[in-house]
Parts: sequence; C-alpha cells; structure tokens
Amino acid sequence: MSEGELDVVGIGNALVDVLSHEAEPFVEEHDLIRGSMTLIESGRAEELYTAMGPGTEMSGGSAANTVAGIASLGGRAAYIGRVYDDQLGAVFAHDLQASGVVFRSLPATDGPPTGRCLIVITPDGERTMSTYLGASSLLGPGNLDPELIAAAKVTYLEGYLWDRPEAKEAYRLATRLAHDAGRIAALTLSDSFCVQRHRTEWRRLIHDSVDIVFANEDEITMLYESASFEQAVEEVKAHCHIACLTRGAEGSVIVTPQEQYTIAAQPVDKVIDTTGAGDLYAAGFLYGYTHNLDLPDCGRLASSAAAAVLGHTGARPELSLEQLSLRRGV
Amino acid sequence: MSEGELDVVGIGNALVDVLSHEAEPFVEEHDLIRGSMTLIESGRAEELYTAMGPGTEMSGGSAANTVAGIASLGGRAAYIGRVYDDQLGAVFAHDLQASGVVFRSLPATDGPPTGRCLIVITPDGERTMSTYLGASSLLGPGNLDPELIAAAKVTYLEGYLWDRPEAKEAYRLATRLAHDAGRIAALTLSDSFCVQRHRTEWRRLIHDSVDIVFANEDEITMLYESASFEQAVEEVKAHCHIACLTRGAEGSVIVTPQEQYTIAAQPVDKVIDTTGAGDLYAAGFLYGYTHNLDLPDCGRLASSAAAAVLGHTGARPELSLEQLSLRRGV
Repeated sequence: MSEGELDVVGIGNALVDVLSHEAEPFVEEHDLIRGSMTLIESGRAEELYTAMGPGTEMSGGSAANTVAGIASLGGRAAYIGRVYDDQLGAVFAHDLQASGVVFRSLPATDGPPTGRCLIVITPDGERTMSTYLGASSLLGPGNLDPELIAAAKVTYLEGYLWDRPEAKEAYRLATRLAHDAGRIAALTLSDSFCVQRHRTEWRRLIHDSVDIVFANEDEITMLYESASFEQAVEEVKAHCHIACLTRGAEGSVIVTPQEQYTIAAQPVDKVIDTTGAGDLYAAGFLYGYTHNLDLPDCGRLASSAAAAVLGHTGARPELSLEQLSLRRGV
Repeated sequence: MSEGELDVVGIGNALVDVLSHEAEPFVEEHDLIRGSMTLIESGRAEELYTAMGPGTEMSGGSAANTVAGIASLGGRAAYIGRVYDDQLGAVFAHDLQASGVVFRSLPATDGPPTGRCLIVITPDGERTMSTYLGASSLLGPGNLDPELIAAAKVTYLEGYLWDRPEAKEAYRLATRLAHDAGRIAALTLSDSFCVQRHRTEWRRLIHDSVDIVFANEDEITMLYESASFEQAVEEVKAHCHIACLTRGAEGSVIVTPQEQYTIAAQPVDKVIDTTGAGDLYAAGFLYGYTHNLDLPDCGRLASSAAAAVLGHTGARPELSLEQLSLRRGV
C-alpha cells in the first residue's frame, strides 16, 4: 500500500480524551497539579473518573491532534500509535481517519485497553490532565511503519511517549529512518515534567537527530537549565536547526542559528479550553513548513491554528483550518 | 438498599450518543430522514459511522437525558436501562451517576454491546438520528427495579423502547407497580415513526394506564389521526389526566380534561443543536410537577430547560438547570 508523498507522520500516545468542566477547588481536592499532565495507573484513573462530572469523549493524543490539524489545513498526514482492539480504540481510529489522516496501525489484541486522558477544565479554560496510558505506551520499534516514515517530509515525535526503553528505541529508529530517506525529524518536548525526567537524554537526542524542536517557555528553560528565556534561546540555536518556542498570550519565537522571529499570538475572544493549543500550533507550523512558507508565515499560521481551538472545548479543530487560514489571508 | 423518596424514575433505551457536524447534503447522500430517529442494524451502523466525520461521544438516551435534567434541577431521579459490560456501558453509567441520578442496573454480560445513537447535526441545528439499540432494547420485566418504581412519584417511560414484546411487558408491569404504590405513570411518544408503528397499542396504553403524556404536534396528531392540532387536543384530553404538547418555536400547550394553557417557547439566541430539547422539556415539567408547581409554572420551567440545551452541542445540560431556574425566577 503506497500513500504517495506525505507532509507529516506523527508518532505518539494514542489516547481518547475524557473532558469534564469542574469548579476550581476540584483540582486541589483531588491532588492534581494545575495545568500539568500527570501519568496515572488504572486504579487512580478509576477513582478520578468516578469523581469527575459527566464527561465528553473525544479522540486526543498530542501528536494525533497535530496531524488531525494538518489534515484539516489540507495537508497530507499520517499517524503511528498503539490502541487496543476495544470501543475507545475504534473511536480513536475512526476520528483520525475521518479527519483525513492515514492511520493503519493494527489494534493490539493483548495487554491493557486503549489509553485515555482525563481532562479537568476549570472556569479559566485551563486544563489539567491525568493520563492512563494503557495500550499506547507499549509502542516499540516493531510498531513503526517505515514506509510512512520514508514517505513523509517530516516525522513528528511527541515527547510524552518517551518513557519506556522500547519507545525510546522506536524514536531513535524513526529519526534514523527519516534521515536515511532524506527527510527531517521534529520533536515536541510536550511537558515540563517530561523535560525534568529526560533532560540529559533529550539534549543529546536534539543535538544528534532532531531538526525542528517545539517547546514552551518552561520546557525550553528547564531543558537547558537556563536562568532566562533569552538564555534558553541562545542554547537551543546551537543544537537545533529550528526551534519554535511558545509563550502563551505573548506569542512565540522562532529561532534558527542565523535568524530569530517573534510572532504575536492570535487574539481570542474568550479562552474556553487550552487543550490542544500547543498541538495545533505545531500543526500550523508544520503545514506551513512542508508547503515552503517562510518561517514568519509558518509562525503566523501556527498562531491562527492554536487560536482556533482555544475558543471551544476539545483539542481538535471544529472548523476546517484550511478555511480559517484562507479567511485570515495567511 | 433504600433510596428514600424519588421524584422520577425513567425507563428507556440506554444509549451513548455519537455526534458529528455535517454539511446539509450528508443527510440525503446517506439516505437519512431529516430530523427523525431511525433504527439501524450493526452493519449499517458501521457503514454510517465510517462516513461520519470526527465524533464526540456523550451519554444520551431520551429518558436518561430527562432524568439527568431533573437531577440537574435539584430533583431526585433514578434510571432503569440496559447497557452491556463494555467501555461505552461504563461511560453511560458514569455520566448518569455523576449527574446525581441513581443508576444501579447491572450491565449485561452476554448479548450485543451497549447501544449507540449516531447523530448527524446539520448547520441549522437539526439532528438526524440513527440508532443501533444493541443491549438497550433487550430490557424485559426482569430488568425492572420495583423498589425504585415504588419510591418514585412518577415513573417516566420512553416510547422509543416500545418494540419488543419483553419491553412492552416491562412497561405494562412498570405502570402497574407505579399505580399499586399510589404513584403515577408518564409516557413520551418519542417520535412520529414510533407512533405510526404502535398507534393502536398506545391509544389503549394511554387510556388505561398513563397519567401524563408528552408528545409533539406531529406525534399527537398521528396518534389520533386528527385533521388538526386542535382536534388532537380534544382527543387527548378525553383519555389522559395531563398532556404536554410541544410545538417547537411556537411553544407548548398543556391540557387536562378541565384546563388548557399555552406556554411560550423560551427564546434562544442561536439554535446549535436540537438534540435533547424534548427530553429536557419533560425534565422541567416533571421537576415542577413533583414539586407542586401549578401547571403553567411547570410549563415555563419546561420551556427554560429545553432552551438551555438548544444553545450547545449535546442533549444534557452544561450548566446546572437549578441555577438556571433560579436566575429566571421560575
């Protein structure tokens, strides 16, 4: 089966999101860390789910949100990730395929069920995530799809998956396969707790085999143990071809060894839910990059795509981002 | 296990809704009947789901939406319905319990999976439903919970479930149990195709053992084969203690043998999705009725509750209806 040339193949934790809106005290009462992503075991997942109000289930997963965003912009995207052969696994596959993303990973028939991310949204739109990884975290080199990686201009890796030795091996193999095919590799640092756990390995990974890195201000300063954002910018440009560094409402900075651009955030009337904003920023950037836009235009498209999901509940675009970008004249 | 006195126990098809927004031509291209509910088999459900865009899963089921609405108003509600022991069954149970509804039906461990309702929402907010009943339709007398029925002021039955002989037997037993306990029984006609299929049986059921009937204009005129809405009103009041007849944007009419009230619809800024509006109308009415409001106030609360779900995607309230009714001074 050939897919022709692809813009981006994403690899990450295949998760279904379970979202509920909760009052502010819920976060503290249930020992959650506001705005973060915490990994939880199945017992804790049961306990927390019981405490949460009525939920909405929507397919999620950081890199999966990004490739769905790229497809929504009109790009050609694929995804590699591990679900179980259960109802949530079928929902995950359906939603990705219905978004126009090539997803042909076979569901697992043994081991834990499809992973899910319990997302508590507080009235300010902040999302606090507790993830039961289930089947998703068992991805290893055998789950890669070398044909898709060779066909994609960019192989995009999600930092969240970097935990088990098999996943690390899969990521190293994926970047090698991409480079062997004359393609490039991108990594998102995903979360400051992930950076804390993997700082040394990630510095080396980025230096050796990542061409584009995505990070927010906390993540990049934590990666290089920098005293300031400016210092982190100096560090990253010595190691990486392109770094896209987001700063929430202050916009983002795109850095290469030779250039640096500051991109304004796209204004949003009211932030309903920040879930997916970083994922869609990456979608906008990578769509632009694989369509030969210059870096400032890639950044502007990234900001528009991020803004498009801040105004509703959920991590994937409701409207076609393609229409959106046309409307905004990017 | 005693639950104390309950306001309402609902009995119906326990379903998880799968909602997607589609452009207008989708309805015709897939041989759907705009605005209706059609029963489908599992093969057709697969086919239609594949054609639908990325979905959102939310617990649904008409009577379940109604009891969730009653709980949201501060009422005490329970639900009897049949799910399978699978992920969607667990989602259904969680959401109902998280809404404050007593739900203690044990999940089935053999037979078909938990039922689901594929809901296509077109840009005008109209919803077209295709239901794969799965485990839900196999409800029989053995699934009733006589303790809950005896404890509830009103036993509320959903017409959708009236298809299999076991379900009919269960409904007849439920109304008898309610009346034996000095309680009352309510029925919603659910859908004009249901009325067409069951007209003769339902006329008898309503005459013999239903105290409150809920229907929209199409359903009530079809039930009595009336030439006009006014004629249907005359018919129904000869057979039923109270009839609540909804007419969309024209509001509703509440009829008893002695009285008749016209209730205005609550204005809605923009109709996003009509899913659940009828269910929530019943919730508002039954909450008012079990809290001794007079009929016009029951009707006004019904209109407010219906309006509260027209403005968002999904069939259950996003805000507490209790707060809503306080705010509107009903």
